[in-house]
Amino acid sequence: MNIETIVNNIEIHLNSVLPKQQFKEVYLYGVLPPGKAFRPQLVSSIFADYNNSHDLDFLNNPKNEVNYLSSAVELHHAYTLLHDDLPCMDDDDIRRGKPATHKAFSEWKALLAGDGLQTASFALLSKYSGKNLSIMLKFFSWALGPKGLIQGQFLDLSEEMTKSFESLILTHQLKTARLIQTSLLLGYWSSSHAENRENIYETSKTLFKLGHAIGIVFQLLDDLTELVDDELSSHESAVNPWLGKFGKNCFESLVTNLSIIDTTLNKEELTTTKSVLKNYFKKIETMVVSGKTNIERHSNNNLMPIVSLLERINT
Amino acid sequence: MNIETIVNNIEIHLNSVLPKQQFKEVYLYGVLPPGKAFRPQLVSSIFADYNNSHDLDFLNNPKNEVNYLSSAVELHHAYTLLHDDLPCMDDDDIRRGKPATHKAFSEWKALLAGDGLQTASFALLSKYSGKNLSIMLKFFSWALGPKGLIQGQFLDLSEEMTKSFESLILTHQLKTARLIQTSLLLGYWSSSHAENRENIYETSKTLFKLGHAIGIVFQLLDDLTELVDDELSSHESAVNPWLGKFGKNCFESLVTNLSIIDTTLNKEELTTTKSVLKNYFKKIETMVVSGKTNIERHSNNNLMPIVSLLERINT
Repeated sequence: MNIETIVNNIEIHLNSVLPKQQFKEVYLYGVLPPGKAFRPQLVSSIFADYNNSHDLDFLNNPKNEVNYLSSAVELHHAYTLLHDDLPCMDDDDIRRGKPATHKAFSEWKALLAGDGLQTASFALLSKYSGKNLSIMLKFFSWALGPKGLIQGQFLDLSEEMTKSFESLILTHQLKTARLIQTSLLLGYWSSSHAENRENIYETSKTLFKLGHAIGIVFQLLDDLTELVDDELSSHESAVNPWLGKFGKNCFESLVTNLSIIDTTLNKEELTTTKSVLKNYFKKIETMVVSGKTNIERHSNNNLMPIVSLLERINT
Repeated sequence: MNIETIVNNIEIHLNSVLPKQQFKEVYLYGVLPPGKAFRPQLVSSIFADYNNSHDLDFLNNPKNEVNYLSSAVELHHAYTLLHDDLPCMDDDDIRRGKPATHKAFSEWKALLAGDGLQTASFALLSKYSGKNLSIMLKFFSWALGPKGLIQGQFLDLSEEMTKSFESLILTHQLKTARLIQTSLLLGYWSSSHAENRENIYETSKTLFKLGHAIGIVFQLLDDLTELVDDELSSHESAVNPWLGKFGKNCFESLVTNLSIIDTTLNKEELTTTKSVLKNYFKKIETMVVSGKTNIERHSNNNLMPIVSLLERINT
């Protein structure tokens, strides 16, 4: 997957929805460069896996409709980051190695640009002219709205998330997995495979579950790799779910969800999507293997089942 | 127009997009009661004016698709108010006679509920199943996005708006008129008149201009009625555009745009929409007539042409 091409498309699409002067720079700063562009990569890879030609040539045409969907997902993701970083939310000064948008400009500009990016994500979605537009809009606005991503953010900020393992998983499901599910489903619904009404229900269900598993794994591995150091900070010791009473649940959930990912990638023959995930999992596997002794000591878990599942996906 | 029925529909639609527990109260507080529900009234009245039956029975069925569009517009409007009132924006503690959402709850809750309401407005839009969904989504996300409402908000907060009369009108056009245009066009596009492709272009253009005129008039009359007092505060004297070098421009623009409203209502036979506007203009006319001496003295304008245009619309 050529990330440069994806980023180039995002830049073209973003510019197409921005005013000519003034304030434009705030949006550009907040969105670009978009890190790994993980979500747009997933839109593109699932589209390639379920489309007749199975190639990635479409990436070279910014006007190909699936590329608008990729950018829509990325702009929506960017809006959540701009708002998350604000002082009244997570109060983070640094994002992707540079000052957060509200530090580089001001609070009201970051808030307003975030609002504009959310609207713009729907403007890019509106470029899709196929018959699945209606279901895309329904899913997008449900998954990322008050019953979805926003509720996940609420559970996180209200500290509801830490009250039980079920709350933790629900938060990851809403805050993280919903946007990944949206990426997979938008990519799929714009593919030729989804033109056949007989396919669409079963495959959508499969990808919904796959997106759920990726989201949960994403967060649990993120917490796990925090444990590679010899000594943990007192903050880390207090908040990392692998250390407390949820440690065993985290382990079981990670194994279950890694297995779902492995099985689904193979069963659905998702070769392009597998390569996108491998890119991410390889780095994690390296970190986990090299920090194995520390992680096992801190979390009191045997990491072998996790390492072998990561290996299985990565080969 | 039965406002109670409209508010009842908004409440039903809002509840349908909210999570079952927790955080629900923040959304409900921020949206209800929705004041005059001016924008949903416009969606409904234009629909009635351009629909075969010309009646308002559809208001009694919350599941009628045009009612979802009304609620979509109101939720979008509510989100802008929640965010506008935040300390880093206009920093207003009171909204519609009660503590603003961030005062009643907290800043992060008001910010997050605003985000959720924006997404929810698209979720309600997605309930529309007719063939004009695509154009509705395109217009909605353009008019209320970075090139539209958000840019208007930027011009206002950056004080760009006060630099020239053109900037003032551009700000009103983007910040106020775009949402009114959206209300008129969504109502129209869901009517039977808009099912005929031959009608749609000309009538959309007419309503676009009408929405522009209503938005400008709305703001200019709002500033004008600030001048009814014997003495003006020093703040009012400094910021009211009727007092400074733009006074003559304000007068001319108000006359022009009131004339456009009057002409369009009659030419298109918009009897229901006329009754909605009359409801608003009657109150303004009363204020202007009773405060005429003061307004004329402060603004150095002869109000007769404005009063007679208001009278013409109100009869």
